[in-house]
Amino acid sequence: MEAPLIEVPDGTVTTPTGFLAGATDANIRGNAPGRLDLGLLYSEQPCAAAAVYTTNKLPGASLVSTRQRLADGRAQALIANSGCANALNGDRGLVDAEEMARLAAGKLGCAAVAVAVASTGVTGTFMPMDRVRRAIEHINVTEDGGDAFAHAIMTTDTVAKQCAVRFEHGGRVYAAGGCAKGSGMIDVNMRTMLGFLTTDAPVGPAALQTLLRDVADVSFNMLTVDGDTSPDDTVLLLANGAAGGDTIDAGHPALPLLRAAVERVAVTLTRKLARDGEGATKLIEVRVDGAASSEDARRAAKAVARSALVKTAVYGNDPNWGRILVAVGYSGCSVEEQKIALSIQEVDVVRNGAPLAFDEAAVSAALNHPEVRFRIELGLGDASATAWGCDMTPEYVRINAEYTT
Amino acid sequence: MEAPLIEVPDGTVTTPTGFLAGATDANIRGNAPGRLDLGLLYSEQPCAAAAVYTTNKLPGASLVSTRQRLADGRAQALIANSGCANALNGDRGLVDAEEMARLAAGKLGCAAVAVAVASTGVTGTFMPMDRVRRAIEHINVTEDGGDAFAHAIMTTDTVAKQCAVRFEHGGRVYAAGGCAKGSGMIDVNMRTMLGFLTTDAPVGPAALQTLLRDVADVSFNMLTVDGDTSPDDTVLLLANGAAGGDTIDAGHPALPLLRAAVERVAVTLTRKLARDGEGATKLIEVRVDGAASSEDARRAAKAVARSALVKTAVYGNDPNWGRILVAVGYSGCSVEEQKIALSIQEVDVVRNGAPLAFDEAAVSAALNHPEVRFRIELGLGDASATAWGCDMTPEYVRINAEYTT
Repeated sequence: MEAPLIEVPDGTVTTPTGFLAGATDANIRGNAPGRLDLGLLYSEQPCAAAAVYTTNKLPGASLVSTRQRLADGRAQALIANSGCANALNGDRGLVDAEEMARLAAGKLGCAAVAVAVASTGVTGTFMPMDRVRRAIEHINVTEDGGDAFAHAIMTTDTVAKQCAVRFEHGGRVYAAGGCAKGSGMIDVNMRTMLGFLTTDAPVGPAALQTLLRDVADVSFNMLTVDGDTSPDDTVLLLANGAAGGDTIDAGHPALPLLRAAVERVAVTLTRKLARDGEGATKLIEVRVDGAASSEDARRAAKAVARSALVKTAVYGNDPNWGRILVAVGYSGCSVEEQKIALSIQEVDVVRNGAPLAFDEAAVSAALNHPEVRFRIELGLGDASATAWGCDMTPEYVRINAEYTT
Repeated sequence: MEAPLIEVPDGTVTTPTGFLAGATDANIRGNAPGRLDLGLLYSEQPCAAAAVYTTNKLPGASLVSTRQRLADGRAQALIANSGCANALNGDRGLVDAEEMARLAAGKLGCAAVAVAVASTGVTGTFMPMDRVRRAIEHINVTEDGGDAFAHAIMTTDTVAKQCAVRFEHGGRVYAAGGCAKGSGMIDVNMRTMLGFLTTDAPVGPAALQTLLRDVADVSFNMLTVDGDTSPDDTVLLLANGAAGGDTIDAGHPALPLLRAAVERVAVTLTRKLARDGEGATKLIEVRVDGAASSEDARRAAKAVARSALVKTAVYGNDPNWGRILVAVGYSGCSVEEQKIALSIQEVDVVRNGAPLAFDEAAVSAALNHPEVRFRIELGLGDASATAWGCDMTPEYVRINAEYTT
């Protein structure tokens, strides 16, 4: 019955109608002229805006000021930069973040209160506002600017992460798009994960916030690269209604489809973030079924995806099922040893809590693949969850040992 | 007023009077003949016994069977092995653990119910009971056997960890000693942290359990190597009373001194464990003061010691204060940014939440030291805590990527 989601080839954050973006090189790092590092995202119409933020108790200035301006669930634009996190900068950080919102508003012709600000990069250094003021004049926002915008927010990311999908409802075509940056999920210096999602569906702010929170819980919030969490993690969802039709609020028949579309975008971005974790060579997907509760399923999946010992074993193509079960054991989820089953790359290795005779060399060979999948059946209930992570490599250590010195 | 603690040079788990130990090579690994891997610890008198165990919900068979036998707070002996964790082995694991207790009891001439069993090594392989039965006959327990015993429990440890202290009270001399193994704190295959503490002071089981729990909370429980927690972590404290005198129970004037002695042994072992973490080149000590509560102080200190980004920065001699504050921020402790102060190797780098001008090259040079110390002042209360960890190195990844394959 449900209409299909259609992937948009080379889809971006400006695939949905009425969104424009652009970027320029402001040399925010001070030593990287020519690198895109300042971007604008703009909607021709005012948007309903939803956001989820880091739980870190020392949030960055851009996040703090954005949370205030977007408290009414409305926004029309976003200014984002890489190279400087504008975090741990005291009062001056807030002053600079607010000026960035005013600069974007002046350039784009909207109200400063409708501008979100997002920053990622080095901690404890001030934003080079003179260069930001000069550079913003050179940004032209266009329908094709999504790709440049996605590049402007990259830090140690090796590739830009973006995608879009379309779906039809009631004779209208809607789109959802997005871009994200991550890599060290979290590297405090790189200020971590940012995700920007757009849709041209008309949605009320309350329904949009609920939708984003639900989607984030099964996508970005199930991603772990090294277990640290950033002061600046921000996911923003803008809905401008440019595709027309009735407002999609709670109970509207199109809401499940819109949610599916945004979830597809968010999960696609999450998988791209995991695969491009710092130093990573592989994406790890951990699926837990049969948990006593949804919270249990989430805990178990995240504990496995986060375990340094699981991550190093995956790097080494080591079918080390014991490490996986131990992570389940300390995750805090309810477990009964004799009910656990586990498969690695679709090969059953544990049943009823005991190891099966399996071909270790064959499973090791199967682990030598850019996507590694674990499925854990707890046998206690019907709750499920999926978490994503990446392997841990000597390169991860090298990147993070050498970052500032 | 308080009598001093006197370090015993080359002190071991058999430094306290009346404890005997020994070890042999049982070739439990199957490929390492000549390596000590099976040890006995024995008290000539029955002991009060206290223990703290892992919170992992999939505990190993040796732990499960020991917890049952020691439920009455009494023990007289311990059999410990490395090379096989006897975990995730189903019912046969329990049968084997119980036979190990009976074998030790038969060899030593005490009741099987008074024997603790502890195993560390590879998961999911059965204990080679035939070799254990043969080998145990070759163990002679002596007053000088503590060192051999400490070696028999080593896995990826590069050095044995042991120490002892003496103190005087009421004209009597008491001793407390101990040994531990760790290394991958936790590596599930290596089955992680074991700590065995002894004292010849006379203590009742209830007071001993309280004492051990308090001591473990400020020593072993503040240690993190890679954030995983093992199914087999066990710390055991035996008090045989061989030094004589009244029973030291709650309210006894010697109890604070005994606690200080056991704490000194436990903290010394904890520091040795941290310094010998898998692949580690440095010990990290994180001291948090001024927290609103003891729980807050503990959370903040552990979050910093556990952060992969802090650990890699320490490896790289990178005075990356931002990563430290970010870990405090996500630890869950109460914080007010403008009240935080931080020193790295006794150099003040942050005050009132803002970075100070400091000599980065000098601090980086100071970080090139086998012991790295961070002090964090939260400025909110008077609670303190100290956590220990180690740096994260490419060698950590190598060890754990290559373990079984």
